[in-house]
Amino acid sequence: MTRLPASLERAIHEFSKLPGIGPKSAQRLALYLLKRDSIDLNNLSGAISSLKEGVTFCSTCHNMADTDPCSVCADQTRDHTLIAVVEEPLDALALDKTEHFKGVFHVLGGVLNPMEGIGAGQLNIDSLHDRIAKQGVTEVIIATNPTLEGETTAMHLARSLKDTGVKVTRIARGLPMGGDLEYADEITLSRALEGRREF
Amino acid sequence: MTRLPASLERAIHEFSKLPGIGPKSAQRLALYLLKRDSIDLNNLSGAISSLKEGVTFCSTCHNMADTDPCSVCADQTRDHTLIAVVEEPLDALALDKTEHFKGVFHVLGGVLNPMEGIGAGQLNIDSLHDRIAKQGVTEVIIATNPTLEGETTAMHLARSLKDTGVKVTRIARGLPMGGDLEYADEITLSRALEGRREF
Repeated sequence: MTRLPASLERAIHEFSKLPGIGPKSAQRLALYLLKRDSIDLNNLSGAISSLKEGVTFCSTCHNMADTDPCSVCADQTRDHTLIAVVEEPLDALALDKTEHFKGVFHVLGGVLNPMEGIGAGQLNIDSLHDRIAKQGVTEVIIATNPTLEGETTAMHLARSLKDTGVKVTRIARGLPMGGDLEYADEITLSRALEGRREF
Repeated sequence: MTRLPASLERAIHEFSKLPGIGPKSAQRLALYLLKRDSIDLNNLSGAISSLKEGVTFCSTCHNMADTDPCSVCADQTRDHTLIAVVEEPLDALALDKTEHFKGVFHVLGGVLNPMEGIGAGQLNIDSLHDRIAKQGVTEVIIATNPTLEGETTAMHLARSLKDTGVKVTRIARGLPMGGDLEYADEITLSRALEGRREF
């Protein structure tokens, strides 16, 4: 039997543990790296082994950051009375990249998922209530993903925020730009109809 | 502007250099690893940094191996008069996994690609001629990929082997098992017709 060198097998094994990387992709990655020079290999391995260095979490918004408070929470030019609630750090990054959001963030750290045993207690919901009281928040934009879990979490949040008197909004769900009615799924189309606005 | 911690940015940058991994996948990989414990991170980074250790190339068939000659070339139970010529080490591995090939391999190390300046001189073709003379080879199966470059390389090889008197064959091109005529491309169908065999 032909077999691959042990170090290559090991790299393939480690790569195939990563999400979205199957055995064939893992083989291709390992073979690709084998052809690179050692400097490239060390850059990649160094970046991985030092990944956690210097990564901290903002105690205010729970976003990943270099510092605590994070650069957004520390930025006094931003609107601290407007909070966008997101599931994960990358969602905050995506919203910020639009440059249409000048408020601050609150990272839940996940979504309600009873199947996986994730209840409201595991999410950063209590600290959101604290911030609303402390920061004089006027509006909370719930920007969880338009998935089953994201919608459930959004509804739970909206209900829990009802008594605070703060304005609670949900990001619009509808047809994505460049999309096509013909190929849109029924739920997206229904949401696009529901969310229609006057010219 | 929200920005990601520096170590995370660095990991994303390194991941996005890998083939088939775009910026979004690189983000997802880095975020995934950030949630793993340090042992997993060190396993992966260790596997990458030590990838080249102990990897050698067989001086006979040019396949990657732990030893020289490789386990296939050293195996006297295999048929050394039958050589399958492949582009890359993984192709040899794939053929071997079928357990329908009992001969030995010859790894070209690529394909003819004039656009990228890869000519016959860069491929392991001369050593193939040497082996044919030395090993008393009776058949050479050209098993390069059914791509433009693979076919060109196969034709070049077939021509260069003509004078050796050895039997030169090409692996069959046709419909893959489980495939569907309706969805097959025209070239594959044409090849499937050309390569038809009597019952």
